[in-house]
Amino acid sequence: MGGSGIGDEFELIAKYFAPLAKDAPGALGLTDDAAIVDLPPDERLVVTLDALVAGVHFLANDPPGDIARKIVRVNLSDLAAMGARPVGLLLSLVLPQDVTLDWLQEFAQGLKSDVEKFSVPLIGGDTVSSPGPLTLSLTALGAVPAAGALTRAGARPGDGIYVTGTIGDGVLGLEVAQGGLKDLSPAHRDALLARYRKPEPRIEFGVRLLDIGHAAIDVSDGLLADLEHICACSGVGASITAGKVPVSPAAKGVLQLDSGRLEDFLLGGDDYELLFTASPECEAEIHAIGMELGLGVTLIGIITEGGGLEVTDAEALDLSLKRLGFKHFQ
Amino acid sequence: MGGSGIGDEFELIAKYFAPLAKDAPGALGLTDDAAIVDLPPDERLVVTLDALVAGVHFLANDPPGDIARKIVRVNLSDLAAMGARPVGLLLSLVLPQDVTLDWLQEFAQGLKSDVEKFSVPLIGGDTVSSPGPLTLSLTALGAVPAAGALTRAGARPGDGIYVTGTIGDGVLGLEVAQGGLKDLSPAHRDALLARYRKPEPRIEFGVRLLDIGHAAIDVSDGLLADLEHICACSGVGASITAGKVPVSPAAKGVLQLDSGRLEDFLLGGDDYELLFTASPECEAEIHAIGMELGLGVTLIGIITEGGGLEVTDAEALDLSLKRLGFKHFQ
Repeated sequence: MGGSGIGDEFELIAKYFAPLAKDAPGALGLTDDAAIVDLPPDERLVVTLDALVAGVHFLANDPPGDIARKIVRVNLSDLAAMGARPVGLLLSLVLPQDVTLDWLQEFAQGLKSDVEKFSVPLIGGDTVSSPGPLTLSLTALGAVPAAGALTRAGARPGDGIYVTGTIGDGVLGLEVAQGGLKDLSPAHRDALLARYRKPEPRIEFGVRLLDIGHAAIDVSDGLLADLEHICACSGVGASITAGKVPVSPAAKGVLQLDSGRLEDFLLGGDDYELLFTASPECEAEIHAIGMELGLGVTLIGIITEGGGLEVTDAEALDLSLKRLGFKHFQ
Repeated sequence: MGGSGIGDEFELIAKYFAPLAKDAPGALGLTDDAAIVDLPPDERLVVTLDALVAGVHFLANDPPGDIARKIVRVNLSDLAAMGARPVGLLLSLVLPQDVTLDWLQEFAQGLKSDVEKFSVPLIGGDTVSSPGPLTLSLTALGAVPAAGALTRAGARPGDGIYVTGTIGDGVLGLEVAQGGLKDLSPAHRDALLARYRKPEPRIEFGVRLLDIGHAAIDVSDGLLADLEHICACSGVGASITAGKVPVSPAAKGVLQLDSGRLEDFLLGGDDYELLFTASPECEAEIHAIGMELGLGVTLIGIITEGGGLEVTDAEALDLSLKRLGFKHFQ
């Protein structure tokens, strides 16, 4: 069945994916029905799953290695938001019928580079053929100390609201990938494209946040939508200052041409930065961790008693709560 | 994006899937980035993933509830082959753009019935829209005692080769679903269809096999192909007697019309029975477990020193190793 003409599933697994399991004896060389995962007795398992579809979540002609890296990183970003260190990946690879051997090799190479970069083995999965578009689902297993994980539910009134890195590069990177933003310098275009295609999961920062953060999420649906998730799960409100939201030099270049674009940065997604809340007393410690890891951390607002999300310093922006976030089924 | 017009992803999750997580506090009501899973300290985690595509692995017009049950059961069958009890499920649900609310409700209802039947909560997942066909990936987490799991790699020369239940109903059930086998009685047609659409993972038998079995696999690619996997992983050969392979009354009806169909039973897949090897001394104990669980167990052959797979009592069959198993990319 299928009919992509690139050989047998078992051969594919053996050739391209089994080497990615070599550091995980419990993966049994990807030859068995399931993999065995051993965690230290003082750790708890954390597990997440994200699916990406060509033409919906990435462009079908994106470089295959970058597609592999993106599915790995969006999942590792979910682990980072829980303060978990990654321990294993399972890949569901649904291949279109016109997939080529070259594509598959480049995809496997991208997967390999991230398996090595993040020291997280591929421990299982399934490869099937489909009449539809390339569809990827990745399950990422992680571990947190027995004391517990960061969740969205712990924000308290008075907490500072922080975000790592910069916001807006994800949505701008997509525009560059689609051929837009031609007025920007080549260096800025490249920087935005790299941020869109190869987001950086803030794993180490998330682990360090375990003892400090009250609530955390990664910015995937959009800064405001993700802040709303924290507020809804924690039963609190939030007030942020739009002008404090950190932007990259490339995004600053876009704002200089059109300051109204800030709205897109707040509503766009795919930034994969950590958005978290913590007690004001931790301010110095948070910045010290950022300094140590070479990652900017910015205070953008405060958690409030009341429900609702307030954005100040946004006179120029036509913010509408109805437009919040990325709606798959809008 | 997407455009199926059935509402927002978060509403979908809250309405249909969050109730399936109610028995798993670590699932955090499916509202967080990841779920937390706690295992007893004397158990090890086992994890597996299987993907199914409409038109490839099931028929697009199969009842939605049965599609849900099938993706759950093929994964639980993989856990059963390791001797693991299920502890949690993560679902990647990639919906076609013409999906209806009715379809989704029936799918969720089927998922709910199996979540309850197998006492295994939904602890996470992702729901996205696609221009392609319905595509499902399920990750199933299970637990085995610290002493270890059953694998494909432990078969020893002299072991008996056993199979639970009956073989061939999967491939015949597919024929019925496609409108074939009209000469059979309605009762036999219904029985085969049920076996194809609602396979029964042999979870309890797998758990009981932990102390007895040397190697195990579930019959998904086909009896001979799956026996080959055991032989390859264990570095042994096998000899089975075709006439000993257990068949259901419905399959017997098919053989009476054409005895050559036995070949299809041995090469067809989707039976989801357990194929395992054990020392000959365990013969009585194995049958006692089968009696206790109301599940037939049949000795069909013996593990041999040499490589290769021998099928005796098969003069009428034109068995070709090249045709072994279900090849996704043939």
